[in-house]
Amino acid sequence: MTLESVCSNIKSVNAKFIEQAQKRLDNLTKPQGSLGRLEEFARQIVSITENSMPALDKKVVFTFAGDHGVADEGVSAFPKAVTPQMVLNFLNGGAGINVLARHAGAEVVVVDIGVDYDFVGEDVKPAPVGGGIFISRKIVSGTGNMRKGAAMTRDEAVKCIDVGIEIANGYAKRGYKIFGTGDMGIANTTPSSAIAAVLTGRPVEEITGRGTGINDDTWKHKVQVIKDAIALNQPDPSDAIDVLSKVGGAEIGGIAGLIIGAAANRIPVVVDGFISTAGALIAYSIEPKTRDYMFSAHMSQEVGHKVILEKIGLRPILDLDLRLGEGTGAALAIFVIEAGLKIYREMATFGEAGVSEKR
Amino acid sequence: MTLESVCSNIKSVNAKFIEQAQKRLDNLTKPQGSLGRLEEFARQIVSITENSMPALDKKVVFTFAGDHGVADEGVSAFPKAVTPQMVLNFLNGGAGINVLARHAGAEVVVVDIGVDYDFVGEDVKPAPVGGGIFISRKIVSGTGNMRKGAAMTRDEAVKCIDVGIEIANGYAKRGYKIFGTGDMGIANTTPSSAIAAVLTGRPVEEITGRGTGINDDTWKHKVQVIKDAIALNQPDPSDAIDVLSKVGGAEIGGIAGLIIGAAANRIPVVVDGFISTAGALIAYSIEPKTRDYMFSAHMSQEVGHKVILEKIGLRPILDLDLRLGEGTGAALAIFVIEAGLKIYREMATFGEAGVSEKR
Repeated sequence: MTLESVCSNIKSVNAKFIEQAQKRLDNLTKPQGSLGRLEEFARQIVSITENSMPALDKKVVFTFAGDHGVADEGVSAFPKAVTPQMVLNFLNGGAGINVLARHAGAEVVVVDIGVDYDFVGEDVKPAPVGGGIFISRKIVSGTGNMRKGAAMTRDEAVKCIDVGIEIANGYAKRGYKIFGTGDMGIANTTPSSAIAAVLTGRPVEEITGRGTGINDDTWKHKVQVIKDAIALNQPDPSDAIDVLSKVGGAEIGGIAGLIIGAAANRIPVVVDGFISTAGALIAYSIEPKTRDYMFSAHMSQEVGHKVILEKIGLRPILDLDLRLGEGTGAALAIFVIEAGLKIYREMATFGEAGVSEKR
Repeated sequence: MTLESVCSNIKSVNAKFIEQAQKRLDNLTKPQGSLGRLEEFARQIVSITENSMPALDKKVVFTFAGDHGVADEGVSAFPKAVTPQMVLNFLNGGAGINVLARHAGAEVVVVDIGVDYDFVGEDVKPAPVGGGIFISRKIVSGTGNMRKGAAMTRDEAVKCIDVGIEIANGYAKRGYKIFGTGDMGIANTTPSSAIAAVLTGRPVEEITGRGTGINDDTWKHKVQVIKDAIALNQPDPSDAIDVLSKVGGAEIGGIAGLIIGAAANRIPVVVDGFISTAGALIAYSIEPKTRDYMFSAHMSQEVGHKVILEKIGLRPILDLDLRLGEGTGAALAIFVIEAGLKIYREMATFGEAGVSEKR
C-alpha cells in the first residue's frame, strides 16, 4: 500500500461525536466543564474511535531507535555506543520508559529501525517480565552524517515511514487501543532541530537546545553543524519526505509513520517530547488531518519543542520539565488521558445518583 | 494533645536526605536531571520520610464535607442539598473522586465534619466496591452565615483542626504512606476566598472566582458578601484560627488539621485545588514548616488559587483546567508523584545496565 493510499484513508474527526460525548459529560454529577481537559480527552477519544463507549484496555508505547552519522561531529554529551546499550536496557526493563509504562499499564515495544549495531537474536529472546519487546526493522545502520551529505536516501526515508505504518496496522489488528511514541538515538535532537528549522522557517538558534546536557561551546557548535547541514543539503520545506531524508533520522521517520498509521486506523496516538514531535511534524506536513488523532504528552525542556507544537496546533498535557525522550512523557500522559475516559465511562449521572442540578 | 504540642513535633526536612536521593538519581541510566520534576518528587518523598527506599503502597484521599451558612446569600450555582447528596454519591462510588482515586490506586475516605444533614447509619454501612468509606466527625451542622456573624466559634474551629490531626494520626498508624486532601461543600469557594483575602492581604475581587459556575451578577454579589463578612467579623490576619472560625468552614479546618497531622507524622500530603489550598494556607500560617510536607496537586481554574500557592511557595504538578474539588486533582497528582518514586526505586544504574556515562 502506498503512502498516498494510506493517507487517503485518514479522515478528520466528526464533530457530531464530540457533541454526543459532551452531552454525556454534562449529565455527570459535577458542574458542567469542571473537569476541564479530562473532559476534552474523553471527547477526543470518542470522536477518534467513533465509539460512544470506548475503553483503553490495551496500551503500548513504541520506542523507535536509530543512530545518527552527525554524532561524529561531537554534538552530543554521550557516546554513540549508548544507543544499543540503551536498547538492551529497554529490553531488560531497567530504563525510564519501562518504569513509567509499567506504572501506566502500557507495554513497551522497542523498534530497531536504524541502530548502528547488530543485535543478535534479540528479536527471538523472550522479554523478561516488565521489559520491552524487540522488533527488528532495520532500514539503515545509522544515518549518514548530514554535515557531509544526505542522512538517508529518499527511498530509505519512505521505508522508515512504511515501517511505522506497518507496525500501527499490526497493533491495531491485535486490538491495541492507544499508542504512545518514543525515541532513542544519541545525537537525535540535532536532526529534530534541523527538521523543525526547515519546516517552521524559524532560525536554527531558536530551535536548538541542550539535548542530554551540552555546554555553551558545544551548543554553538551544534547550531553551526545544523546550519551547515541545511546549507549543504537544501531540503525542500514543501516536501516533508525530502526533509526527513536529508536532515532527519530513521527513528523520526518511524514515528511519523506510526502516527500516520494510527490516524488511518482511527487510533489515538500520544506524541512524546521533542524528537517525537519532530516526527509528528513530518506526519502533519504529509497529511494535516493526522493532527486530530494526536495528543501532545508534555512540554519538553528542549527549547524547540514549543515552536513545533504551535505549528501543529497542539497543547501539551503535562509540564514536568522532562527531557529524556524514550516515550516517558507519553506513558504518563496515557494515564491522564485514560483518567478522562474513565470519568466519561464511570461517573454517575445526576439522575442515577439523585443529585440536584444547577438552579 | 494540644495543637501547639503537635506543631512542636513538625521539623523541616533534612537537606542531607535530598542530597542522598539526588546521588542515586544521578546514577540512573538517563542524563542527569532529565526527568525533571519526577526527580524532585522522589527527593521530596525521601526527605519527608527519611527513608532511603520509601514506597507509596497505601494511598488515601480524604474528602472533608461541610455546609456553609453563607449559601443562604445565594453565592452558589447549586442548592445546599447537594452537599449530602454528593456525600452519598462518594460512598456509592459514582463521583469524580471515586473514579480518579480508583484509577490511581487510592482509597477514598469521606469525612462528615460539618454537613447540615443527619446521615443515618452511613458510618456502619460497608462501602460498595469502589465506593468511599464514611467517617462521622461532625463538629457543626453547617457553619453560621458569615455575613451575619462568625461562621464558627473559636472552639469549633480548633475542634475541626483536631479532627484532621486525629485522622492523620489514625491513618499513619495503619500504614498509609501518602495522603490527598479533598473537599465537598456547596458555597465553599466563598469562605476560601475570604480566608485567602485576609491571609494574603489581596483585594477580594482578585481572589474570588466563579465556583461551580456563577454569572457576572452573582459574582459581583459574592464579592460583596465576602467584603461584608470581613468587615463585620474583623478576622485577625496574624491569627489563622481566628480567620478560620470567623470566615472559614469546617471542612477547610479539617483539611488544615490533616496537613498538620501529616507533617507531624512525616507523611507527604497532596493538596488538591482552591478550597484545599485555603486549608493549606491555614496550616502554613499556624506552622510554616508544614510546607515541606505538601505537594500542590494542580493549578485550579479558580482565580484565587495562584495567589495562595505563591504565598505558601508551592508549584502545582498538573494544569488541566480542573475546578471540581473533591480531591480529584490530588488523586491524579498522587499517580505522578508515585511515578517519580518508582523512577527512583526501579530504574537501573549505569553500572547495572552496562551503559556508558557522559563523556
